[in-house]
Amino acid sequence: MNFITSKDSLHHAVNIVQKAVSNKTTMPILEGILFRIVDNTIYLMGTDLEIGIKTVLPGQIISSGSVVISAKLISEIVRKLPDDDVIIELKENHVLNIKCSNSEFNIQGQSGDDFPQLPEVDSAQEISVPKELFKGMIRETIFSVAKNENIPILTGELLELQNGILKFVALDGYRLAVRQGFIDNPISLKEVVPERTLSELYRITSLSSEDNIYMSYSKNQILFRLGGTSIVSRLLEGEFINYNQIIPQNYTTKVKVDVRDLLASSERASLMVGSGESNLIKLNFSNDTLEIRSNSEIGTVCEQVEVEMEGDPLKIAFNSTYLIDVLKVISDEEVYLEFTTPVSPCVLRPITGDNYTYLILPVRYMEH
Amino acid sequence: MNFITSKDSLHHAVNIVQKAVSNKTTMPILEGILFRIVDNTIYLMGTDLEIGIKTVLPGQIISSGSVVISAKLISEIVRKLPDDDVIIELKENHVLNIKCSNSEFNIQGQSGDDFPQLPEVDSAQEISVPKELFKGMIRETIFSVAKNENIPILTGELLELQNGILKFVALDGYRLAVRQGFIDNPISLKEVVPERTLSELYRITSLSSEDNIYMSYSKNQILFRLGGTSIVSRLLEGEFINYNQIIPQNYTTKVKVDVRDLLASSERASLMVGSGESNLIKLNFSNDTLEIRSNSEIGTVCEQVEVEMEGDPLKIAFNSTYLIDVLKVISDEEVYLEFTTPVSPCVLRPITGDNYTYLILPVRYMEH
Repeated sequence: MNFITSKDSLHHAVNIVQKAVSNKTTMPILEGILFRIVDNTIYLMGTDLEIGIKTVLPGQIISSGSVVISAKLISEIVRKLPDDDVIIELKENHVLNIKCSNSEFNIQGQSGDDFPQLPEVDSAQEISVPKELFKGMIRETIFSVAKNENIPILTGELLELQNGILKFVALDGYRLAVRQGFIDNPISLKEVVPERTLSELYRITSLSSEDNIYMSYSKNQILFRLGGTSIVSRLLEGEFINYNQIIPQNYTTKVKVDVRDLLASSERASLMVGSGESNLIKLNFSNDTLEIRSNSEIGTVCEQVEVEMEGDPLKIAFNSTYLIDVLKVISDEEVYLEFTTPVSPCVLRPITGDNYTYLILPVRYMEH
Repeated sequence: MNFITSKDSLHHAVNIVQKAVSNKTTMPILEGILFRIVDNTIYLMGTDLEIGIKTVLPGQIISSGSVVISAKLISEIVRKLPDDDVIIELKENHVLNIKCSNSEFNIQGQSGDDFPQLPEVDSAQEISVPKELFKGMIRETIFSVAKNENIPILTGELLELQNGILKFVALDGYRLAVRQGFIDNPISLKEVVPERTLSELYRITSLSSEDNIYMSYSKNQILFRLGGTSIVSRLLEGEFINYNQIIPQNYTTKVKVDVRDLLASSERASLMVGSGESNLIKLNFSNDTLEIRSNSEIGTVCEQVEVEMEGDPLKIAFNSTYLIDVLKVISDEEVYLEFTTPVSPCVLRPITGDNYTYLILPVRYMEH
């Protein structure tokens, strides 16, 4: 294996595949990145057997071959190389020689033949999604994925495509996030993708200048393709919860509120929740005013927010974290909050359109 | 106590005094910031009994008094307040009422009478130092202060003023940093200031728009004044090491080198030092070329740097950390390295002038 590339190209490629590399593994070879030249193309690849990332490295090929190099070491070296051409040559005993300007490294590697292959995904049917839409859909739902593994299927997000409408759905038992976009594709899809895969995809799409991401899937695997980069991930097994039936369709109180105002007031109110676990803040809607209160051993806070109300006055309490998490990802200026009773979920909807639906369960509390 | 100030002024003042507040203390009152109005001035103060920071808060005073408020809580609240006037009023039982726009907090505080006073420092003789010079002198020496407390006096820096020349000196047994500047002041000073005080001073000078910092000292204390902010610190007791006698005055090899080139090469070479404790990199000066080598179980590296040499060829080895730390703070384009033998210190000096002198001890090693 022998090729010439640039410091920037190498840095970019190592950055992309590095995050699939496992930090704690019982297989030392998985701490490495595979460098491989085959079919006149230079590939870099990292995997922890749950997710695999492969990317094409542009360069001038002199001879083919493969080797596995410590991901940590190669990324530190590449970061510090001068901005110049990099000449990479595989020597005997899996030693990789790296020359760049007045700098020369010889690094002990491992045989590339021992590195696991990425599973094949039949990509006859590819679904194209505009990259910015895809990124937004991850960002605006991923916080609602379940953090603990009590219900394994909830540690991923449902990706659903039907009649050209793509939906990302995350839910953790206390809240639900649904984000949708129109992509005009007749294919049907209903698969659950692990949270980690989505957060890596978010990171990789942020590094890429491509306009579109392409998805395809087989029974157990899903493949995302973004230019010369492929991300393969296992899918979560099992049936996702029927989220549609838990979204209330009616309301008795509907409130229009400025998102930034409500976020700032909720954040301030949350400073007084004290050391209790529920992070309780109390909301009182009446006469076009929302009053948010919180109190604990450290003190009390009262916030007033102007709102536009329709329907009945209402007192309700939330875990402040759940309200703050949702408000942080809504980029609209205003939002609708819909309520029925103090013990029923609150639904957040856009003023126009139906790009998103968020649901938060309230906390029951005793009025003093 | 009752006054009106702005969110920005309050935020700035809390930021300044907060770092003197101890995180781990057996006296709960020291986890707080003292708010105090006396002599028609609003003061904020924090202390951990080793260092105390007091600052004037601009505002409109309605009535005087004092209270101690949790530093952590008040800084979180102030950071999240709207950009508006803040009305602060002390209620019964040390409860502090904070009103800002539509936000109102009541925080449980403690009696201001229980807060320790800052020690008085006789400030008849103040030494004025341009702030930027003072900052630079800290930045360019503080990394050489001893990290462990085997020799307590070395956990501080010597501040020495004689014949108008101000010197900051730090030394840890492996390296020495001396930085000097001319301030045209006939006062003599020779005191050792704890590292923590200097790092807080660096932080506070970075927040300030003042042009000068004023120093004054008594037997055990030193006072730094920067506009409305005072920092009082204990001094370290004992005699500082006579650093002048350990700086070699002669050399047999003198090398002029580009600082950024040498830094980059040293950083790359340090990637191959492996898991040994000495971080050993080997330097070989000959024929106007410096070759830096390092090798370990993970691989080898060879770096070449062009230099201008005077005197004998030389092979010497260093702990890469010590060389890198020094090179990072030298802002000059080029520097002189002076050597006598492979087991004698290397001295770094500016090409022109005598603003700084750095010394690094080499590491003995066996040639394979």
